Amino acid sequence: MVSGSCAVMAVVSSSSHLQGLVPFTSQPNCFPHQQLPGSVNGSYGLSSSSSSSSSKRFFTSLRACRSQVYGGLPITSFTSNYTMLTPASAAAAATYPSICAGVVNQLEKLAEREREVVFDLKSYMLAKAKAVNAALDEAVPLRYPEKIHASMRYSLLAGGKRVRPALCIAACELVGGSEEEAMPTACAMEMVHTMSLIHDDLPCMDNDDLRRGQPTNHIAFGEDTAVLAGDALLSLAFEHIAGASKKVSADRIVRVIAELGKAIGSEGLVAGQVVDIASEGDSSVGLETLEYVHIHKTALLLEASVVSGALVGGASDEEVEKLRQYARSVGLLFQVVDDILDVTKSSEQLGKTAGKDLLTDKATYPKLLGLERSKEFANELVRKAKEQLSSFDQQKAAPLLGLADFIAYRQN
Amino acid sequence: MVSGSCAVMAVVSSSSHLQGLVPFTSQPNCFPHQQLPGSVNGSYGLSSSSSSSSSKRFFTSLRACRSQVYGGLPITSFTSNYTMLTPASAAAAATYPSICAGVVNQLEKLAEREREVVFDLKSYMLAKAKAVNAALDEAVPLRYPEKIHASMRYSLLAGGKRVRPALCIAACELVGGSEEEAMPTACAMEMVHTMSLIHDDLPCMDNDDLRRGQPTNHIAFGEDTAVLAGDALLSLAFEHIAGASKKVSADRIVRVIAELGKAIGSEGLVAGQVVDIASEGDSSVGLETLEYVHIHKTALLLEASVVSGALVGGASDEEVEKLRQYARSVGLLFQVVDDILDVTKSSEQLGKTAGKDLLTDKATYPKLLGLERSKEFANELVRKAKEQLSSFDQQKAAPLLGLADFIAYRQN
Repeated sequence: MVSGSCAVMAVVSSSSHLQGLVPFTSQPNCFPHQQLPGSVNGSYGLSSSSSSSSSKRFFTSLRACRSQVYGGLPITSFTSNYTMLTPASAAAAATYPSICAGVVNQLEKLAEREREVVFDLKSYMLAKAKAVNAALDEAVPLRYPEKIHASMRYSLLAGGKRVRPALCIAACELVGGSEEEAMPTACAMEMVHTMSLIHDDLPCMDNDDLRRGQPTNHIAFGEDTAVLAGDALLSLAFEHIAGASKKVSADRIVRVIAELGKAIGSEGLVAGQVVDIASEGDSSVGLETLEYVHIHKTALLLEASVVSGALVGGASDEEVEKLRQYARSVGLLFQVVDDILDVTKSSEQLGKTAGKDLLTDKATYPKLLGLERSKEFANELVRKAKEQLSSFDQQKAAPLLGLADFIAYRQN
Repeated sequence: MVSGSCAVMAVVSSSSHLQGLVPFTSQPNCFPHQQLPGSVNGSYGLSSSSSSSSSKRFFTSLRACRSQVYGGLPITSFTSNYTMLTPASAAAAATYPSICAGVVNQLEKLAEREREVVFDLKSYMLAKAKAVNAALDEAVPLRYPEKIHASMRYSLLAGGKRVRPALCIAACELVGGSEEEAMPTACAMEMVHTMSLIHDDLPCMDNDDLRRGQPTNHIAFGEDTAVLAGDALLSLAFEHIAGASKKVSADRIVRVIAELGKAIGSEGLVAGQVVDIASEGDSSVGLETLEYVHIHKTALLLEASVVSGALVGGASDEEVEKLRQYARSVGLLFQVVDDILDVTKSSEQLGKTAGKDLLTDKATYPKLLGLERSKEFANELVRKAKEQLSSFDQQKAAPLLGLADFIAYRQN
């Protein structure tokens, strides 16, 4: 493919439910890190230019990279770069099929440089997940009474994607903080998330037997232990932030705890779950209630993850506000995609019971908007999320930009 | 009764299960606030001297006060004073049945002074409970979604004795802090306590239908809402400390949150409940396990209440340590008395199902030690608790001294 300036859509796996709606755009042949006027948010895209053998090799390599799978997911949309080829070299590559050695060398160097700054979300997320898993493992050792700790560890270390910790760490790093500073807060987000899954799965709630491809906590350990494991994880989340954040000032810790508390309680995910349960089987439930449920049940904890990471990292009020808006869009997106996946994937693919929303005639975006409009809504949310990051250093913002795509294009 | 220096046992209601074992001692005829060498902990006692008409009036009034009931409980042991009659006037009273007008006047003045400094635990606890109730009411308003807030308020505002908030505020005031500073933390203790009651009562746990004389939360609101109300209260506890403690430094708040978290989680009350459930029906359970359960299920939250109050009030490390030891004894005492009450009181008297421990053949102190030795153990714990307070200003320590008695001699 040889072209001049053009918008390029990232190739998405044919199995993606959002195929053809990927919001990536870029203007090729720009200088590295240049603002991309053609892009939706001026931030983010894939270079596609040159027919030179070197750049062919490069893009072949990039395509190979695209075909890699992250945790069973195509990572097509999660690998991106900011370094573009120069207009001059790209024009030469477009004009002359046979390129002189000098130009080849130049392109080789540029391609090398491009490889250097390519943001590899897969590696980033794997590295963060590994660090988070190690920190969680350490935070909840298997000690007396063994049963409760085994139950907590069973759900906590069940191999989730660690999206919330990743968002927390990425936000902290974006504003100048470190992974080390963010880690206790990042772990707390996963503890709270795990608690909400354990309690939501209980017979008196969603009554689910399967979670992440394994028996739910109460199936494995009994209802009493499952309730208590959730309580212990919830309590530990706050204790861990307060006790383990050795390099974070007390002022910041206090703000993080208030933020997290609000995201969980009767104005947070508990409120979402309550309204969700009350809405079950109610055919009159409309978009407003649906959005209330999704925002409260899911989005607020993602928002708390991002905002808390930013607070730990020392973000200004303005930065916190932008990241909060980013997180709100990403948070709602997360649940919209969940709704879509519930009707497009199998239980095996999801690692949890699929099609439950249909069975229970639950209000979902696909039910209220239709599948296609739900996908459009998801794309709009990705766009809005990224827009909030436009004023940040784009290289530093790469993880959060990538995470928005990851959440949009995940397959489970 | 006229006597010289003697130890005086406080009169305890005949219905008290600890009758005759009350550890109050005092040496009458001491100067106000004087260290009492004859007392067990040198801290605390009731004056008993003089046969003058004025002091008769005073002690008649004191006895009337003793017969008052706090929340259905005889307050005999909760009203104490530190101002004693002078040796000279008491000796005169002992020697001459007919006392001259001058001495009467002197005794009138002293009695007046005594009335002024009498510590009235009933009034203290009523005042604190009123303030705590108002603060809790404000902290959990009835808003959307109404059902979850109604459920939270149902259990939170069900009229408990507010022992934990009172301990918290008393500890804060003892070390120089104010009720206002302690209030968010005090409320948090009650929120956590309420959460633990709601979850412990669930069908999958203790399966209790009655609590504080009312249907348990899951009976009134359904199991799903009860689980979520507990979660919301637990989360709110931390959020409230972090968000509402406006006049407390962030350093202190962070320490309080770490302290509270530890008291709740898998090394705190959750651990106690897990081991308690595991021990049910196990006839081999001994004193060690029983103490583990009581310390974890009950004592640690009482300890957290006292220590957190002290931290908020700016206690030194040494003060914190003494108050921690006081609270450990009081905390264990609380559960020992609970065990005793379970076998000596009716459901109506307790406001919850009585005799459950016997029915389930649960390990309790009366079962393992016998009732009399359990009462002796309770008295020993009161003594140990008070001993830790001997180095504090005794007038300022009066609420905590009184609370130890209140916990020991409560009737439900």
